[in-house]
Amino acid sequence: MSLQRLTALRALMASQPSALAAYIVPTADAHNSEYISPVDARREWLSGFTGSAGTAVVTSANALVWTDGRYYTQFEKEADLTTWTLMKQSLPETPSMEKWLASNLLAGSIVGVDPKTMTREEWTPLQMALTKAKMQLVAVDKNLVDQARVQLNEPPPERPHNVIMHLPLQYTGKTAGQKITELREAMAEKKSSALVVTALDEIAYTLNLRGSDIDYNPVFFSYLLITPTSVVLFWHLGQIPEGVAASLRDEGVEIEGKPYDEIVPTLRRFARELSENGDGEHSIWLSGEASEAIHRAASGEGYLKKPLNLVSEVSPVALAKLIKNDVELEGFRQCHIRDGIAVVRFFRWLHSQVDAGNNITEIQAADKLLEFRKDEKDFMGPSFETIPGAGENGAIIHYSPSRDGPQRDIRSKDMFLLDSGGQYKDGTTDITRTRHMGQPERLQQDSFTRVLKGQIAVGSALYPKGVKGNVLDSLARKALWDVGLDYAHGTGHGVGHFLNVHEGPAGVSWRPYPHDPGLKPGQILSNEPGYYKVGEYGIRHEDLVETIAVTKDTKHHRAAGLLGDYDGRGVLGFNTITLVPHHKMCISEELLTDFELNYLNAYHERVFQTLGPILMERRLREDYVWLEKECSPIMRA
Amino acid sequence: MSLQRLTALRALMASQPSALAAYIVPTADAHNSEYISPVDARREWLSGFTGSAGTAVVTSANALVWTDGRYYTQFEKEADLTTWTLMKQSLPETPSMEKWLASNLLAGSIVGVDPKTMTREEWTPLQMALTKAKMQLVAVDKNLVDQARVQLNEPPPERPHNVIMHLPLQYTGKTAGQKITELREAMAEKKSSALVVTALDEIAYTLNLRGSDIDYNPVFFSYLLITPTSVVLFWHLGQIPEGVAASLRDEGVEIEGKPYDEIVPTLRRFARELSENGDGEHSIWLSGEASEAIHRAASGEGYLKKPLNLVSEVSPVALAKLIKNDVELEGFRQCHIRDGIAVVRFFRWLHSQVDAGNNITEIQAADKLLEFRKDEKDFMGPSFETIPGAGENGAIIHYSPSRDGPQRDIRSKDMFLLDSGGQYKDGTTDITRTRHMGQPERLQQDSFTRVLKGQIAVGSALYPKGVKGNVLDSLARKALWDVGLDYAHGTGHGVGHFLNVHEGPAGVSWRPYPHDPGLKPGQILSNEPGYYKVGEYGIRHEDLVETIAVTKDTKHHRAAGLLGDYDGRGVLGFNTITLVPHHKMCISEELLTDFELNYLNAYHERVFQTLGPILMERRLREDYVWLEKECSPIMRA
Repeated sequence: MSLQRLTALRALMASQPSALAAYIVPTADAHNSEYISPVDARREWLSGFTGSAGTAVVTSANALVWTDGRYYTQFEKEADLTTWTLMKQSLPETPSMEKWLASNLLAGSIVGVDPKTMTREEWTPLQMALTKAKMQLVAVDKNLVDQARVQLNEPPPERPHNVIMHLPLQYTGKTAGQKITELREAMAEKKSSALVVTALDEIAYTLNLRGSDIDYNPVFFSYLLITPTSVVLFWHLGQIPEGVAASLRDEGVEIEGKPYDEIVPTLRRFARELSENGDGEHSIWLSGEASEAIHRAASGEGYLKKPLNLVSEVSPVALAKLIKNDVELEGFRQCHIRDGIAVVRFFRWLHSQVDAGNNITEIQAADKLLEFRKDEKDFMGPSFETIPGAGENGAIIHYSPSRDGPQRDIRSKDMFLLDSGGQYKDGTTDITRTRHMGQPERLQQDSFTRVLKGQIAVGSALYPKGVKGNVLDSLARKALWDVGLDYAHGTGHGVGHFLNVHEGPAGVSWRPYPHDPGLKPGQILSNEPGYYKVGEYGIRHEDLVETIAVTKDTKHHRAAGLLGDYDGRGVLGFNTITLVPHHKMCISEELLTDFELNYLNAYHERVFQTLGPILMERRLREDYVWLEKECSPIMRA
Repeated sequence: MSLQRLTALRALMASQPSALAAYIVPTADAHNSEYISPVDARREWLSGFTGSAGTAVVTSANALVWTDGRYYTQFEKEADLTTWTLMKQSLPETPSMEKWLASNLLAGSIVGVDPKTMTREEWTPLQMALTKAKMQLVAVDKNLVDQARVQLNEPPPERPHNVIMHLPLQYTGKTAGQKITELREAMAEKKSSALVVTALDEIAYTLNLRGSDIDYNPVFFSYLLITPTSVVLFWHLGQIPEGVAASLRDEGVEIEGKPYDEIVPTLRRFARELSENGDGEHSIWLSGEASEAIHRAASGEGYLKKPLNLVSEVSPVALAKLIKNDVELEGFRQCHIRDGIAVVRFFRWLHSQVDAGNNITEIQAADKLLEFRKDEKDFMGPSFETIPGAGENGAIIHYSPSRDGPQRDIRSKDMFLLDSGGQYKDGTTDITRTRHMGQPERLQQDSFTRVLKGQIAVGSALYPKGVKGNVLDSLARKALWDVGLDYAHGTGHGVGHFLNVHEGPAGVSWRPYPHDPGLKPGQILSNEPGYYKVGEYGIRHEDLVETIAVTKDTKHHRAAGLLGDYDGRGVLGFNTITLVPHHKMCISEELLTDFELNYLNAYHERVFQTLGPILMERRLREDYVWLEKECSPIMRA
């Protein structure tokens, strides 16, 4: 089947006005979304590979996918390896896509891509690399994969346009009107006569609206155009539901609706107007992560004689929503209490089932966890697909079990890694706990404890305000590195407020986050070191933490010891908001320093003091007793 | 005086064919040298500021210098603050030079700079930023500061062209012929018909020659042009001394000499030839850190109708000399033994003088240290200007006492920071030790120990092969960060082999080193965390370390505990080659973990076992006894 699809695509490539030597199929949709809707799952349809990251390149002779270490195993399971080649992009010896194209195509070749599916920041260097190799990168406006789907009678599904909800001020803490006023101030400073917001979570954030067009991400397909005098939402057929419009009016925003597809012609008209009647100083502002197609429309490239200069840099909305306000932060703390209750109840239940000898599959476990979360106030759904990795499946970093075919039971000899999260109206959770269902081995305890030491090192770290998140990454790895172990993913990502569970532009990784503006109080990050023994088990401990300013008076483990404030730069630390105990049976306390042991015991006490009374109040006595035991202090032997 | 110089420069700016709204005076010479010769000290002559880093910008109304945190105090001492403004570039609120120019000059302004004093990598983004602000960056070929000096009857001194020495194979480990063969292989791969080497240390390395044209750096002013069939050295008047030519012939290189100033016309001829008779595929290769002037000559910009594409990227010579060969590594180890002897003898002497109540000034101390180094075989001179910081002067990161005016004695209540190094034929040293001349205070011990913990964290670290040096930076800072302290410099720099004491392209810092190719065995790095209490004292512990591959069998503190090799990536660690004890009186052993205490005791034992027999053999009994005491193990109370 894969070959048939490839053949159809290759025929379309050959039939372009200038035949394409290669066609690139990125993962992204037109909004550079991390998770995509089935209508945009072009690379998946073409290659069979369902991973959330990866870029396909098709030539007449080759079909390749570049993806990273999280997906190698999955790719080899899902793709037809007689036609598809995996390019392991984490390996230094793997050529980048640019290099591969440059050295495998003839000079003069034309490489095509749908400019809606590639950001300007990706397009420009690729174009430069190909130009250097005497090749050409061309924008193919009509997506060839979509055309192949139609030809093969497997047309893409309709683009969803589900109902939009307004998120009240009690959850958001700031009116849409206020947000837009602040954006307009930034626009005035940049001499921008328009701001184009293309990232779906940024639109949802700006307007205090939420949708459900993409699984797990409460967003809706749209574009937002803000000018000094208007706010235009490009959505579906353009008619904004009166309830939504009224809510926005209450928040000080008069919203104008236009059809989703009108964004390009509107920008073109705007650009022409600016070019003809502008003062030569004002321009259009959009994110460098907006698509090449949107950039072209906004600059007038291809239809204005002299295309406009654009302000193309990190979106001001991304920078605004990075720093959570007090209401959002309190919401994060509150939903983590409720989420902690659900996860604690789940683990108590799972242990009781496994101990009783009942067969529980990974999917049954995920379903049961969802049930517990549904008991919690303001729960809106999972924040991503639950990763219930029993035994060897725990070593697959983005594992998701299939509902078809044979099911994997969670057995008493399994290490069990559970990564899951919830969307709540007051915040988003993302937690991983790893528990052994029976008796862990010595080496498992050793690496479990080293991962925990890494998590504590980050969770308890103090660091100067303004440093980028990546300086914290090796603190998380040190205890593993000391014995030759590591993990092939970053240590932390930003998290949206009842928005995307992965949120830029900051993060904690050995890779620099180019747009990280430096850490400031009020950010939410994950803290998730891990260790994976392929074919045997996986370990990950993931908390969400908030960045807080620390002075001598702050409630923080290191506050009392402060001797300075980094010469006036200011001290930052973390407050861990995830509240679920770690599996003590898996901890080698002799590997913990006194500081780490005290830190862990204090954390467990806080978990119990916070969740215990709620369990008691709800008369969940068995859960209460279980949690009390799980949170009792570790004593040195 | 400064005003008179500025006035002369401003008159020249106004008299250019297109009057300059601003003129930029970078620190660099035409070879992007870190240390420069007096002939190139243009910014210093103009502003009075002698720091090794900083860029001056002169407009009709302003005169500013951008420099970093190491030099704020020095700038305010040296520059005339009634005419000059310090731009503290380490502060986030300070606009970059680009931003300042863009917002302080009128649209249409012309900004000039001598293209020999700016690298292409600096030129291109500056040009883009100015173009965006509707200004123009123009290359002013005849340096305006040099012209002003002539006008004011203070002409720049002659460019030095001191004698060149050949460094025999017993020191270099690889013939110049072999090095050039390898470079030609790389050129063939890049389809380069010429490689232009512009960095002075790269030329010295390639040809196994050393000079003395720049203080502390054993280099000579020259350019090197390598083609598949020729090796041309542009030096002085072009006549290569027969001894040098003969040595090179012995190493398989037939060297051709041309006058130093012939580089630009030669490149222009070469470019024209390539443009007219080339195959369209081959081009000229130079480092992105070569000057804009050299880039223009090599591309034909300004005189060829269609300028050539260049290969402008990290120099292959920089990458080659980054990895030291076995002979170079053994030389490094050996010269560190001799250097350790000198530094140990010095400290014994200094303590005895201070204890006896003799007044020793900082400069006398530096001179005495030089005497001890001169006793050592193959010593060629200091590798940089000694930093002998007593008390408050220790907090000035690049301190150098003046020989004029009142002198600072090293007193018994002083913390004394001594940063110094030697050039030896078999390697280069760079060591900082901090000692208290009497009884340190509690807080001094605390921060001394935290700096030491940072140094041990890096020195004992294991990490995957191929990670960039900057991932190690926060390991060095953690013990300080934990209590709100930090230091305003990087943790480590590369070191040349009897070459520049600061050598790229790798390093350990929170700032990424963009050309760091990832750590591999055989590199030499410094490991130098610090802490500075302005107005009181400075603490820095600096070792040089070599990167080594670590397996279970390696002599390394963590070898026995290895559980993996990072999934095949390979394990790296460090071998510390600096051999001078730390001042035990300044160490709070209760802040050290058992691992750290054992590590330190083992290091001290190694120092004593290595240096002790040499002192004994030389009948330096007092030094031996002192060293034995200094290296005796620290016991827990």
